[in-house]
Amino acid sequence: MSGLSFQVLATDGRARLGQVHTAHGMIDTPAFMPVGTGATVKALTPETVAETGTQVILANTYHLMLRPGADVVERLGGLHRFMNWPKPILTDSGGFQVMSLAKLREVREDGVVFTSHIDGARHALSPERAVDIQRALGADIAMVLDECTPYPVDETACARSMRLSMRWAERSRAAFRERPGAGLFGIVQGGVHEHLRRESAAALTALGFAGYAIGGLAVGEGQALMFDTLELTTALLPEDRPRYLMGVGKPDDLVGAVARGADMFDCVLPTRSGRTGQAFTRRGTVNLRNARHAEDSRPLDANCPCPACTRYSRAYLCHLVRSKEILGAMLLTRHNLHYYQELMVGLRRAIGNGTFEAFAAAFAGEQAAGDIEPV
Amino acid sequence: MSGLSFQVLATDGRARLGQVHTAHGMIDTPAFMPVGTGATVKALTPETVAETGTQVILANTYHLMLRPGADVVERLGGLHRFMNWPKPILTDSGGFQVMSLAKLREVREDGVVFTSHIDGARHALSPERAVDIQRALGADIAMVLDECTPYPVDETACARSMRLSMRWAERSRAAFRERPGAGLFGIVQGGVHEHLRRESAAALTALGFAGYAIGGLAVGEGQALMFDTLELTTALLPEDRPRYLMGVGKPDDLVGAVARGADMFDCVLPTRSGRTGQAFTRRGTVNLRNARHAEDSRPLDANCPCPACTRYSRAYLCHLVRSKEILGAMLLTRHNLHYYQELMVGLRRAIGNGTFEAFAAAFAGEQAAGDIEPV
Repeated sequence: MSGLSFQVLATDGRARLGQVHTAHGMIDTPAFMPVGTGATVKALTPETVAETGTQVILANTYHLMLRPGADVVERLGGLHRFMNWPKPILTDSGGFQVMSLAKLREVREDGVVFTSHIDGARHALSPERAVDIQRALGADIAMVLDECTPYPVDETACARSMRLSMRWAERSRAAFRERPGAGLFGIVQGGVHEHLRRESAAALTALGFAGYAIGGLAVGEGQALMFDTLELTTALLPEDRPRYLMGVGKPDDLVGAVARGADMFDCVLPTRSGRTGQAFTRRGTVNLRNARHAEDSRPLDANCPCPACTRYSRAYLCHLVRSKEILGAMLLTRHNLHYYQELMVGLRRAIGNGTFEAFAAAFAGEQAAGDIEPV
Repeated sequence: MSGLSFQVLATDGRARLGQVHTAHGMIDTPAFMPVGTGATVKALTPETVAETGTQVILANTYHLMLRPGADVVERLGGLHRFMNWPKPILTDSGGFQVMSLAKLREVREDGVVFTSHIDGARHALSPERAVDIQRALGADIAMVLDECTPYPVDETACARSMRLSMRWAERSRAAFRERPGAGLFGIVQGGVHEHLRRESAAALTALGFAGYAIGGLAVGEGQALMFDTLELTTALLPEDRPRYLMGVGKPDDLVGAVARGADMFDCVLPTRSGRTGQAFTRRGTVNLRNARHAEDSRPLDANCPCPACTRYSRAYLCHLVRSKEILGAMLLTRHNLHYYQELMVGLRRAIGNGTFEAFAAAFAGEQAAGDIEPV
């Protein structure tokens, strides 16, 4: 049994309002997890991350095993203490980023070998090692090592990849040492093929995990196919465990995924966009590099209470972005996370009130309205 | 007469404790002014800048006239409002940075012409235009356009350069429109030559300025020659006006310059160093990139109350610096400014108490002690 507990407090259609309890505190679901790649959510202090309403962050095993090293973090008291983030942390297994960032990588039955993108050093990651690294980091929620099946891929290759991930999931499950308030999530693979998703979900639920992630989506298949695959996959998973849709997504992806029964999300979009001048608002995305903002004394979003919106003009934010000033990344990252977390608050409130459908419709209407308020 | 007021509250030797009153509030002197080049003190929010004890910042006319343009800032309500910094702002004249950053620059009797380092556009800066730009920006303290005489230079060239600056100072003075709580500072030039400094100081004091800057120092002449030149120059300036030593400096430069009668300082050192992993502490400078910090769980400075020192280990700061994380720049810039402002508080208190000499001796002893506390 898992050291995590999860309760579903309310449902509205297939959308769920819930709570995950960890050794480092509670996570209200649906939850958005900002990405703190290398033990920092880029351009924010942990205090500011918490001020956005964030209750859990994601940290990357791949990055941390390479720098500063999981052993170093462990000797320094674990990731929470190292980065001064006392709330829950979910770590990925490292598998996804080995495939996207490492060089000379090779997938074998026993795991992956690769060379670091930082210094070219040779490393290996097995299901057992991935679990051990995440324990050393002190993760509240750890993930099984898997292979994120690319898209598009033929069905035979997709099945082979999924089955390798399932063998790794079994080994990960066996290697995971139970701790109070911590748990291991399995990851459903199988591409966009229903029968493969069924096979994968059956294999994982037979093993029993503290939660279930839906992997291999948001990799180029498009929102419609992602939603279809998500919808069929969440229906295969136990009701009493949290469901985590990995690497998703845009605000409308989140709303649609919550409607299909997903509880947890992570994505670099709000933080990365904050560093490139892209802002998310109730009224859609705003590119602050655009010349139309250069002399605009109005706030980015007149209804947003974050510092970027209450203390500065679009003109100033445009100036910071164009001048590549760090303050631009700081303010816009904070704004974007604030927006994402406010969206999650809205989703949770709507599910609790049984008004999810109306909330989703109002959300879509606002997003389509254009970013400038009528004068 | 000036729209600024200045009072000397106490002296200790030649060190002065004072207050400058501006339209945007009071500046305790000796004062250190962080550099907010392009309408932002890099890597800090204005709230954080204020939390370090900063009472006045410097902004760069050269940068702001090129981007976003002084006219844009003026239409948006001036620099204070644009960057959300309600306290005093000193602007430089742009002359120094034209010489160090612009391309194809040419110094003529009427001013300088140059091409922008950003987009190659052609610009001109005259004494009158420099004053007008600073008025448009809303500077509390504006500076006359001058030529920062390079070092080393032969005495004839040094004299010619200084005399050009004095002619420009006269034109700047004539162009400056008095406003309540705002003032124009003259800049003494003359290299390391006493008779040229005398000539320059006499020319400026005959014109009468709200304050007097000492320019052309910290340009390679070394600390001893800088101190000698400063000492002879401050003696030539009126007692009832603030004296601003431009572009200085390291902590021990500040202590030595205060001892020689300087009241105001600006330097990029604490902020720029904060972005490259160099920290200033009571016990000297610390390079956080150094491998000796990689597993050091101790704080950067156990006696410093700033967040970098109270919330994180040297190991974490080292990790951030090596990973080029923005948070590293944020935390170390804040720490460095906190250190600088704490030093200024100490200097002011010592002057007020008549214990400047003891303070300076204790400072020198601590700086020499090495950055790690005895265990």
